[in-house]
Amino acid sequence: MRRENYFNKSPGRKHLFSPGTFSAQRYIMNDFKVTPWEVTGDIDYDELIVRFGTKKIDDALMERLAGYGPVHLLLRRGIVYSQRDMEWILNEYDKGNKFFLYTGRGPSGNIHLGHLMPWIFTKYIQDTFGANLYFQMTDDEKFLFNDSLQLKDTNRLAYENALDVIALGFDVKKTKIVVDTECIDTLYPMALEVAKRVTFSTTKAVFGFENSNNIGEIFYTSIQAAPAFMEKILYDKATPCLIPCGIDQDPHFRITRDVAAMMGLPKPALLHTKMFPGLTGGDKMSSSVPGSTIYTTDSPKEVKKKIGNAFTGGAVTVEEQRKNGGKPEVCAVYKYNFFLFESNDEVLADLADRCRKGEVLCGECKKALTEKLVKFLEGHQERREKAKDQIHDFMLHENL
Amino acid sequence: MRRENYFNKSPGRKHLFSPGTFSAQRYIMNDFKVTPWEVTGDIDYDELIVRFGTKKIDDALMERLAGYGPVHLLLRRGIVYSQRDMEWILNEYDKGNKFFLYTGRGPSGNIHLGHLMPWIFTKYIQDTFGANLYFQMTDDEKFLFNDSLQLKDTNRLAYENALDVIALGFDVKKTKIVVDTECIDTLYPMALEVAKRVTFSTTKAVFGFENSNNIGEIFYTSIQAAPAFMEKILYDKATPCLIPCGIDQDPHFRITRDVAAMMGLPKPALLHTKMFPGLTGGDKMSSSVPGSTIYTTDSPKEVKKKIGNAFTGGAVTVEEQRKNGGKPEVCAVYKYNFFLFESNDEVLADLADRCRKGEVLCGECKKALTEKLVKFLEGHQERREKAKDQIHDFMLHENL
Repeated sequence: MRRENYFNKSPGRKHLFSPGTFSAQRYIMNDFKVTPWEVTGDIDYDELIVRFGTKKIDDALMERLAGYGPVHLLLRRGIVYSQRDMEWILNEYDKGNKFFLYTGRGPSGNIHLGHLMPWIFTKYIQDTFGANLYFQMTDDEKFLFNDSLQLKDTNRLAYENALDVIALGFDVKKTKIVVDTECIDTLYPMALEVAKRVTFSTTKAVFGFENSNNIGEIFYTSIQAAPAFMEKILYDKATPCLIPCGIDQDPHFRITRDVAAMMGLPKPALLHTKMFPGLTGGDKMSSSVPGSTIYTTDSPKEVKKKIGNAFTGGAVTVEEQRKNGGKPEVCAVYKYNFFLFESNDEVLADLADRCRKGEVLCGECKKALTEKLVKFLEGHQERREKAKDQIHDFMLHENL
Repeated sequence: MRRENYFNKSPGRKHLFSPGTFSAQRYIMNDFKVTPWEVTGDIDYDELIVRFGTKKIDDALMERLAGYGPVHLLLRRGIVYSQRDMEWILNEYDKGNKFFLYTGRGPSGNIHLGHLMPWIFTKYIQDTFGANLYFQMTDDEKFLFNDSLQLKDTNRLAYENALDVIALGFDVKKTKIVVDTECIDTLYPMALEVAKRVTFSTTKAVFGFENSNNIGEIFYTSIQAAPAFMEKILYDKATPCLIPCGIDQDPHFRITRDVAAMMGLPKPALLHTKMFPGLTGGDKMSSSVPGSTIYTTDSPKEVKKKIGNAFTGGAVTVEEQRKNGGKPEVCAVYKYNFFLFESNDEVLADLADRCRKGEVLCGECKKALTEKLVKFLEGHQERREKAKDQIHDFMLHENL
């Protein structure tokens, strides 16, 4: 199986020092920051593996995963690229000890395509392994970490965002949504077990907290840890847990894993995704950069406008592009196809090839992507409407 | 009205500097520590008022309180001695804006007489002012702050301790017991509002926390703050709140009051009690000093033995005591009468007088106190048994 890794590194980036060797110079050159609340700079995903102490998904694991069914494009293309304890979770699965899935969302606004990506991947894992999923909506977190948000806002958004989760087609029999403030009676005793085993020093080291952080922020990681032990909480069973999430969430689960060992419970395994690209050329689609983001509720007109303004790898003039070709590796439109919207690897490779040869122009690519997105969103929005009737069946606290 | 203050200061203690003037020497001389989790040394209660910034209950307030009904002996004798915003709470009451009461218990063991004292006082306030009472059982706190306790232990103790609360005769129509882990869905949103407004710096300054404190301990004060806004939570009403509690709990409520102002809610008022004395002569009855403590479940035999071994103000020989008299101000047996078990001020004064003159010996006092305690505990234990049938009517989470 061939793995494409066009976007593992920005063009021209070189490792001057061997991975794992600390060097101030290297940190200056690669000046990026990845925490659960802040992703800035030009992310070097390989270096993040070293910083966080995770494992790259290697060919052996990829081949093993292929044994359970078709390998998802996010794996094939190295977008789901890092892991913790996947070999163990598959060993347990092979012995008949099924795992459950846990992922989540901080409901601070509307859902964009970047949010959907790890959830689409989560659904693939659920379908492939028949796994239960607990989907956490951290309305408490988003209230604590955002001065401008009230708890009633983040709680409302939790329900709004849940519609997008449900619209992706998760199996209601195997999927429960955990809104923190609604399920706190379920989560709190386990959160206390975690909190008792985590000092402020640890949160300083892992998250960079300072004395000026509020005491809710400091406690919060306990709440994000709790669902990793959900079947212990609900059924008193030490079921293995697999967490698919953005690599930016790993710091929480490093703490969770340490505490799991102290509690004599299985450490959750992880699969990490890279950040979904922004339309304006940045590393991460972000709600804070208008126009860089396509929301699940965008109209065809809005999609057309945003894709029309997207950053591409084209040349300044048509003539130049016909002559010298474009650069798919920096093109937001190409990245969209790469990350989610062109599932056929050969078609994608052909598109890149034709772009580099100047055979396809940006306008054509934009038009084709717009059509795909409009079609995707049409279906999503329809399912999202239907989700309003299903939401109660998905809410954990209404089904205990 | 005469206020006796035999125990405001240890004998011989003198203020070398005017109150409020910081002096290292003074702190060395009066080396005591009072936090919600640690009371050590020989407490100078007047100095505590200065340290904590509370107000002494003065004659004007005493006279005003007398206008609502007979003044409780704990007030008359200066055991309930310090306050915050009592004038305001009475002004509101006089205008028809009734307050509710909030107090609590950290369920880390069985109940002794020292625990009952502020609750007996709370019942007096409930009876006098017809106030609702929310009684918090902090099973989460005691789990977080005690390495040797499991959450199932502190939760079980919350229910055990609740029987002692109920046995005191609180009005079930006006009293609800709030077990933290059972009522967390009610408390959590308000705790988050508090937590967002309190930094780690503040908890360092107020409680002396360090980086090695666990993140549950750091967050906990938010949970103790929440019931001060209970009628906001339950009925969306900004009802004034009065908290009768040991002076050692004041640091929590200093934070609560600051945050209340930020939230535009009324600051809770407070009435502070001194610590109940130990039988072995220490300043505080403590479960950690065996024999210093009389539990509500003690048998007559145990009471007799403990009172028999109590520290008194008697002389070494009967002859000497008959000649020189005893010292009621250092006598644990006398303190028990003073704090709770001799409600008649004249009888009490006469007892002190006869002790000083050598007319009454320690054995007689011990016998008389033992009889009173055995009788009190007999009634309490009977009501405690009956409380097992009433407990469900008292639990907030079973009556929402």
